[in-house]
Amino acid sequence: MGHCPQGGRSVLDPHAGRYAARTAGMTASEIRALFAVASRPEVVSLAGGMPNLAALPLETIAAETARIIAEDGLTALQYASAQGLPVLREQICEVMSLEGVAAHPDDVLVTVGSQMGLDLVARLFCDPGDLVVAEGPSYVGALGSFAAYQAEVAHVAVDAHGLVPEGLRAALRQARNAGRRVKLLYTVPNFHNPSGVTLAVERRAEILEICRTHGVLVVEDNPYGLLGFDGRTHPALHSMDPENVVYLGSFSKTFASGLRVGWVLAPHPVREKLVLAAESATLCPPTLNQMIVSRYLATQDWRGQIAVFRENYRERRDAMLRALEDFLPPGCSWTEPDGGFYVWVKVPEGVNTKAMLPRAVDARVAYASGTGFYTNGLGARRMRLSYCYPSPERIREGVRRLAGVLEAEPALAPAFRPVAGLRERAPETV
Amino acid sequence: MGHCPQGGRSVLDPHAGRYAARTAGMTASEIRALFAVASRPEVVSLAGGMPNLAALPLETIAAETARIIAEDGLTALQYASAQGLPVLREQICEVMSLEGVAAHPDDVLVTVGSQMGLDLVARLFCDPGDLVVAEGPSYVGALGSFAAYQAEVAHVAVDAHGLVPEGLRAALRQARNAGRRVKLLYTVPNFHNPSGVTLAVERRAEILEICRTHGVLVVEDNPYGLLGFDGRTHPALHSMDPENVVYLGSFSKTFASGLRVGWVLAPHPVREKLVLAAESATLCPPTLNQMIVSRYLATQDWRGQIAVFRENYRERRDAMLRALEDFLPPGCSWTEPDGGFYVWVKVPEGVNTKAMLPRAVDARVAYASGTGFYTNGLGARRMRLSYCYPSPERIREGVRRLAGVLEAEPALAPAFRPVAGLRERAPETV
Repeated sequence: MGHCPQGGRSVLDPHAGRYAARTAGMTASEIRALFAVASRPEVVSLAGGMPNLAALPLETIAAETARIIAEDGLTALQYASAQGLPVLREQICEVMSLEGVAAHPDDVLVTVGSQMGLDLVARLFCDPGDLVVAEGPSYVGALGSFAAYQAEVAHVAVDAHGLVPEGLRAALRQARNAGRRVKLLYTVPNFHNPSGVTLAVERRAEILEICRTHGVLVVEDNPYGLLGFDGRTHPALHSMDPENVVYLGSFSKTFASGLRVGWVLAPHPVREKLVLAAESATLCPPTLNQMIVSRYLATQDWRGQIAVFRENYRERRDAMLRALEDFLPPGCSWTEPDGGFYVWVKVPEGVNTKAMLPRAVDARVAYASGTGFYTNGLGARRMRLSYCYPSPERIREGVRRLAGVLEAEPALAPAFRPVAGLRERAPETV
Repeated sequence: MGHCPQGGRSVLDPHAGRYAARTAGMTASEIRALFAVASRPEVVSLAGGMPNLAALPLETIAAETARIIAEDGLTALQYASAQGLPVLREQICEVMSLEGVAAHPDDVLVTVGSQMGLDLVARLFCDPGDLVVAEGPSYVGALGSFAAYQAEVAHVAVDAHGLVPEGLRAALRQARNAGRRVKLLYTVPNFHNPSGVTLAVERRAEILEICRTHGVLVVEDNPYGLLGFDGRTHPALHSMDPENVVYLGSFSKTFASGLRVGWVLAPHPVREKLVLAAESATLCPPTLNQMIVSRYLATQDWRGQIAVFRENYRERRDAMLRALEDFLPPGCSWTEPDGGFYVWVKVPEGVNTKAMLPRAVDARVAYASGTGFYTNGLGARRMRLSYCYPSPERIREGVRRLAGVLEAEPALAPAFRPVAGLRERAPETV
């Protein structure tokens, strides 16, 4: 059974011999597989990345949506262009201008969440065997899209200031020496998923320069950019090299994830091909959803709403960091995010976060084990803790439970315990 | 310029050397390119396939949607499962039962329109160079999806009773002799797009048997099945061979296309892989849209609404057929659909519908030229006329204009005109 290409399915699946080669690379992500378990109410889930929507003005959104359907329903419920509504694309340019992006609406494609943008970019650029360079760790949804088009991911180390330029140079050198083609650098520069770090501004130009020199297109995935806790934004990579950066944006974290409205901003010839790929993928994005987002941006204080979200997440980040400090055993370290949803935790040697997860769920706490964020088997001593969704009290309780689980690990038994003074606190690399 | 793989783009597009091989196959469809022109108000568009939504109870949908957001907004605006909401998947099974399908909700995947279902099926099964067998002519969106995964389409002739089984046998034989792998039969059995014909019930078992014998999976695309003008439905192919048929369904024609809610019903192991592919494509379908459809099915007389749609389309079909009869010059023939949106017209020898199209648009009428529905260059003497959207009066006026354009074609000049008695009316093949 182990020798058949569909992973032993041929016995059960009469279609096993029919799948495309790329289908062999489609495997359930560890993180997604966890969601069913983690969503049991008695479990404190620090695993998911669901935004906390409680602060949204639901009554207002309900009334505005009803107005759209009642007054303009024959448009809202009808097919529209594959590229997305012009008025929304204009507003998207306004949103991006907050991060220094000067874009034309004609270069924007509206997508069904930025995941669709990722998928289309991978579809457009990745031949089987191509390399994509990405942070190690990297966003699991991106790893899935690259795998779906049979590209391989080469991870580059990240430290507290984001992607390490020297690591990027080394990865590109190594690829060239191996005769491999690097098509893309995929990066989440702001409040990175999963590591929580932000690419230092002084590194941005350097990384863009390296990519330009090596003929590598940059894919800037920026769902969290407006969620910096001090309210400041960082200049988008796109703003510094618009002709060599494809920018992915989303309203999932700044408005409502369930509407599935994201976008891609791309150099014009790339955008043209993206529209063709999008037509083939979904014909057009949902019209009603685009009109809801457009009306929201036009009539509501969306900047004020983002400030409320930011404050909610800052409170939760604080609760998380305080609890980690109070409860985690010696030998643990973690990143300290200035925005976004995630803390990346390093556990003591000998602890395997993937193996430990069932014991954590038994103790009614869930996290995302680090291995899911790498394609190369790394991450067993890392875990991602999300503070975006639960209340500060639940976060504290979850970390307390997690600390109990960690302390019960054999590697942390008294005999193995490191000397207290060696406790790491501010990690050099994540 | 003609020698570079991106069709001369290298001069303009600095990214030209970076695209994946599959991207070369992404070209703007003739039909889509036409939409901008055809949407000018003075043009009678018989080109598009937009459903006529005027009969929808907009006030009710607006109120129900507002209720969903106000009462359950934290769910409606949040991420949900990649497979789709369980309650909607149950209701989808009910809808399919009208055509004899006995399905379990666990085998259903909700998609962003059935175009996404097509894309995922092509992604799952098509390696570059694989063959897909499909009606000739065939739905342009499906041709696009197969091309996007570098599969080739072998067209099989269609007559007034749908796909010709002997043609299918011949195509499969020919493929085998050429050492080609046929992965899928793609078919629209009911009220076919673009030909308007319906697969005779007595042919259905035969075609399923041929596919099973040859190890070819059947993809049954059925957006129009409930739009038969006599209100009768035909047994779905899926109902006759559930283990070898992937069924694609949609609410675009029975409720609202702009919500982009469709589905795939697939044998269980295929469905599992479809969910993984869907996660990578869009993470999850829009939650709000699923809840709107689910609420609509639960609270509104959706069967009655479909009956209203049917009646509207029947009226328009009648207007179209009457106008064709009254106006088209000798030498033209057309199909007579019992449901759906389309009439497929054959024009006299010497007329090229693609070349004629700019002249038609000058005369303020648009159609979809036949060549867009083939991958092999056929169709120059065919055109698709849609009667779904315009009013009966506009349809009549559009056909009157079209007749004028046809009569002015050089091939129809008096010297070339065939003897009146030879006028074809009921075509043997479409």
